[in-house]
Amino acid sequence: MNQKPLHDYEALEAQCRAIRERILDVVSTNGGHLSSTLGATELIVAMHAVFDSAKDPFIFDVSHQAYAHKLLTGRWEAFATLRQFDGLSGYTKPKESEHDYFVAGHSSTSISLGVGAAKAIALKGEQNERIPVVMIGDGALSAGMAYEALNELGEREYPMVIILNDNEMSIAKPIGAVSRMLSSAMASPFYQKIKRGTEMFVDHFGEGAHYLAKRFEESFKLITPGIMFEEMGIEYIGPVDGHDIKRLVETFETARTMGKPVIIHAQTIKGKGYKIAEGQHEQWHGVGPFDLDSGVSHKKSGAKSATQIYTEALLHQADRNEKVVGVTAAMPSGTGLSALLEKYPDRFWDVAIAEQHAVTSMGALAKEGFKPFCTIYSTFLQRGYDQVIHDVCLMDLPVVFAMDRAGIVGEDGETHQGVFDISFLRAIPNMTLCAPRDEKSMHQAVAFAAAFDRPLGLRYPRGAFLTAGLPESTPFEYGKAELLIEAQSDILLIGYGNGVGRAAQTLEQLGMPAALLDLRFVKPLDTELLRMLTGRHKRWFVFSDSAAAGGVGSALLEWLASEGIGDIRLQSFEYGDAFITHGATLKVEASLGLRPEQLAERIRESF
Amino acid sequence: MNQKPLHDYEALEAQCRAIRERILDVVSTNGGHLSSTLGATELIVAMHAVFDSAKDPFIFDVSHQAYAHKLLTGRWEAFATLRQFDGLSGYTKPKESEHDYFVAGHSSTSISLGVGAAKAIALKGEQNERIPVVMIGDGALSAGMAYEALNELGEREYPMVIILNDNEMSIAKPIGAVSRMLSSAMASPFYQKIKRGTEMFVDHFGEGAHYLAKRFEESFKLITPGIMFEEMGIEYIGPVDGHDIKRLVETFETARTMGKPVIIHAQTIKGKGYKIAEGQHEQWHGVGPFDLDSGVSHKKSGAKSATQIYTEALLHQADRNEKVVGVTAAMPSGTGLSALLEKYPDRFWDVAIAEQHAVTSMGALAKEGFKPFCTIYSTFLQRGYDQVIHDVCLMDLPVVFAMDRAGIVGEDGETHQGVFDISFLRAIPNMTLCAPRDEKSMHQAVAFAAAFDRPLGLRYPRGAFLTAGLPESTPFEYGKAELLIEAQSDILLIGYGNGVGRAAQTLEQLGMPAALLDLRFVKPLDTELLRMLTGRHKRWFVFSDSAAAGGVGSALLEWLASEGIGDIRLQSFEYGDAFITHGATLKVEASLGLRPEQLAERIRESF
Repeated sequence: MNQKPLHDYEALEAQCRAIRERILDVVSTNGGHLSSTLGATELIVAMHAVFDSAKDPFIFDVSHQAYAHKLLTGRWEAFATLRQFDGLSGYTKPKESEHDYFVAGHSSTSISLGVGAAKAIALKGEQNERIPVVMIGDGALSAGMAYEALNELGEREYPMVIILNDNEMSIAKPIGAVSRMLSSAMASPFYQKIKRGTEMFVDHFGEGAHYLAKRFEESFKLITPGIMFEEMGIEYIGPVDGHDIKRLVETFETARTMGKPVIIHAQTIKGKGYKIAEGQHEQWHGVGPFDLDSGVSHKKSGAKSATQIYTEALLHQADRNEKVVGVTAAMPSGTGLSALLEKYPDRFWDVAIAEQHAVTSMGALAKEGFKPFCTIYSTFLQRGYDQVIHDVCLMDLPVVFAMDRAGIVGEDGETHQGVFDISFLRAIPNMTLCAPRDEKSMHQAVAFAAAFDRPLGLRYPRGAFLTAGLPESTPFEYGKAELLIEAQSDILLIGYGNGVGRAAQTLEQLGMPAALLDLRFVKPLDTELLRMLTGRHKRWFVFSDSAAAGGVGSALLEWLASEGIGDIRLQSFEYGDAFITHGATLKVEASLGLRPEQLAERIRESF
Repeated sequence: MNQKPLHDYEALEAQCRAIRERILDVVSTNGGHLSSTLGATELIVAMHAVFDSAKDPFIFDVSHQAYAHKLLTGRWEAFATLRQFDGLSGYTKPKESEHDYFVAGHSSTSISLGVGAAKAIALKGEQNERIPVVMIGDGALSAGMAYEALNELGEREYPMVIILNDNEMSIAKPIGAVSRMLSSAMASPFYQKIKRGTEMFVDHFGEGAHYLAKRFEESFKLITPGIMFEEMGIEYIGPVDGHDIKRLVETFETARTMGKPVIIHAQTIKGKGYKIAEGQHEQWHGVGPFDLDSGVSHKKSGAKSATQIYTEALLHQADRNEKVVGVTAAMPSGTGLSALLEKYPDRFWDVAIAEQHAVTSMGALAKEGFKPFCTIYSTFLQRGYDQVIHDVCLMDLPVVFAMDRAGIVGEDGETHQGVFDISFLRAIPNMTLCAPRDEKSMHQAVAFAAAFDRPLGLRYPRGAFLTAGLPESTPFEYGKAELLIEAQSDILLIGYGNGVGRAAQTLEQLGMPAALLDLRFVKPLDTELLRMLTGRHKRWFVFSDSAAAGGVGSALLEWLASEGIGDIRLQSFEYGDAFITHGATLKVEASLGLRPEQLAERIRESF
């Protein structure tokens, strides 16, 4: 590899300071991920000092910690547009820069990508020119796919540098045995004592004892956090101070030339450099705009979020029924489950970033007569898909999948949109799917879910429900829709979940009479009511925050076809066949033609 | 817990012999999983001697090794119907017996289920009465979800007995660092030498050295295979001889009362008790009927399987294009990839039971300019769903997902049916989906796939393609269907993949003229040709081995609706909304009304 010039550590430290300042300026204005990216600043500056992102694959796990990388690769000015519509993404994105090797928004993909890149490098014979550099947080190590990748990496021993960014927290406090192992102290005085003991041992027994002494030395690893990695065949260096730029650069230089997989265990402080956020857990992970001096959020107190309502509804059920249990996969605050974890620590669990395990373990609890609420963002339930099929639906067990962030999620963007759940869950036998439209119906949906004895999926949006002057919701009944507005009109607006509010807002803009149906259940459909409506309305318009392919409109079309009903013209306003970009939800929706005034116009145009 | 009477080890040994005899009798007649179940006989007999399957959750990973458990729980006679339609399942199945705690057919779910059961036991206050007993093979430990579960188990330390059935092979030879670690020898003479060394050390340094000596003792663990588990907080016992019934019973008795999670590492010989199969790798894992004395298969040499054709086609491409690479997740023989692994060991990888890692690592290879063929059964790709979305399609990378066993898989049954792939893949932007109908078109589809520069899903059935006298297939062209039979008729039969042969066979039985279209691409649809056909034929019938919800018919309905075409009556003969049972494929299809003569009748009836 090329010899890098000697490093100017003072310049690198100044760079870190400037980067932190820029990040704080922009994030306090735009909102974004803060504490992880502040904590990783020296790591990223050192990465760029030692490796070359123009050729070495720089692979950031989840990549919300990679703002410094963006700033170092030609995006200093553009960083002002962070997470805004048409602006920079909050994650790495190859379309944005050739220095971004891969998209990442879901956790724990980085080591797999590193293994793939290493295989490519070996096949191309570029081992002397390029090496994958992977940064992964300690929280991300809890996910199974990180382990699957380590398992192959340890076997095949591809050269790779893995920087373990250990801030003793992912988004929430990390859970699990591996996390505990990482934080085990080095017990330095004890180490020294052992070391002296060995020397005396060798002195006493002479040459023949050297081999034993070697084993004895090796045994010290037992008290280091790296034993698991070393047992898997991956070299371990650490822990090192993740804010000591000189030490990091030297360590990276060493790792670069070792010709095998190396994990550098760097200990960092989340929020480093911004006193108010330093060492804080969840609070400063993802933030809205805030005042830099005081740390006080600029957020106006808006309408109650669907998450908040869900939490209240679930607490209500949990208070009344001790069989109600639940799980979150490392998202206690995001899913609102933290309130339950706090009040019922024996019945609600955070199982770390482990959606597969979360789903299957709740299957067993359901089998034992409990009523589990598996509370996982729509986008992350994709990680537990096989388990939903194989360990819940095949057994026909009463697990509730409460899918937060269903629909467009705003600033997080493409990696996090919750758009596929209806398509992938609707095909599963024994599954029931329903959705609330507002605060009251959320309480009713959760009450229904708590009493329901089969698998159930429940979806609700990020932020507040869309509202419009709608009749008060009535209790949920299995497979029953709710006809909210009757009208002498050819037009029937069919809403599902947050789509009901969107339909109602559209109706306000429409200037034509139309009936409005809250579908409530997309599986099973309320075929009785729908059949009646086929007689009254011939033009159906479907509103749901979900992919059109296999979505709500598709379910209705399948039913119409199976009934041989040919005279209904159905148009779906679900999402088209493209990944949806980031930005303020309203702007993103406007770009897709999904604002009420646009939808009303689309309806009028269709006549 | 209740005190069990002293065990009659001779009786238990006799039981093992009888069980093996029964298994060999039935499996040599019916076919089934053989070597794993023979190898686990003593483990299961000892489980039943020590634990009580009427109350203790007996959790078998994958559960194809659990035949002995079936025989010990009231299914001795019924075992003659193993894997037959209406007979016993080849896997555990609660509907079959209350002693079967859970369904299992996919690997690596058992520890999660154990954790869930342990939580339930704790909540019910039954810790003194019940304990989860989990049996998992060494191969299954490579999957991420096993690790996710261990991570929580080690943290929360629920009482649980995990029997690690280590036969140094799963279906194929297990891959990975953990597997290597497990097989590390105990190095007994060396252990003794160390032991003596320690004693001398303590003698020499006196009392003060006791603490050091203790650490030194602990350091021995470094050379045992259990260190990873112990570091995770899980007690490790082993290795023990998995065919020594007395030793097993004693060990299980110890583990039962330890009040914490324990892994018992038992070494077994796959195929034990049937000399011809003993210690064999893949060959004797799953077998068809065979002659007990000679071990010779009764299998008639039938038509070439789709798997075989795929392998030949892929070899052809790999020979011509060195950018072609590929991966299997522990299914080299089942997917036919073994031929590629053998011929191109640098370009084709078995990454163990690790579908998530398989998909994502191939994403990186695609990014580097390679052309990966990710060859995974339809049912197992469910494990990599999020990775298909997030690490391949979002990046719009040219990874091919070759989905073997798409459709009804026969004797394996409900857990393995390959029915959901169209529904869950069709909703993903940037994805293209196509399917071959026969040998020639498989070669053409694989050639198309090798040249295609975006994500592509390719599905094909277990066993041979259905055939009928069809015109010779022409090369695949992006998004182009193939009109095979034109007819002056209101009827259009639309086939996809193996559904084309089914449609052609149905046409032979129909006694009415009909046109026949090979759809080839379900995404994107050949809208030009389809539009033309809407003018000619008003009654469309869809044939595809896939779930109807979100499937091929659904795709066509969505398109028709989006075009505002209302005069087509479409009926789909895809699978209805129920899990599909096991048994000979023809019988299962007949039970669903999917045999050609039944389909022809359904068409006639619809007029």
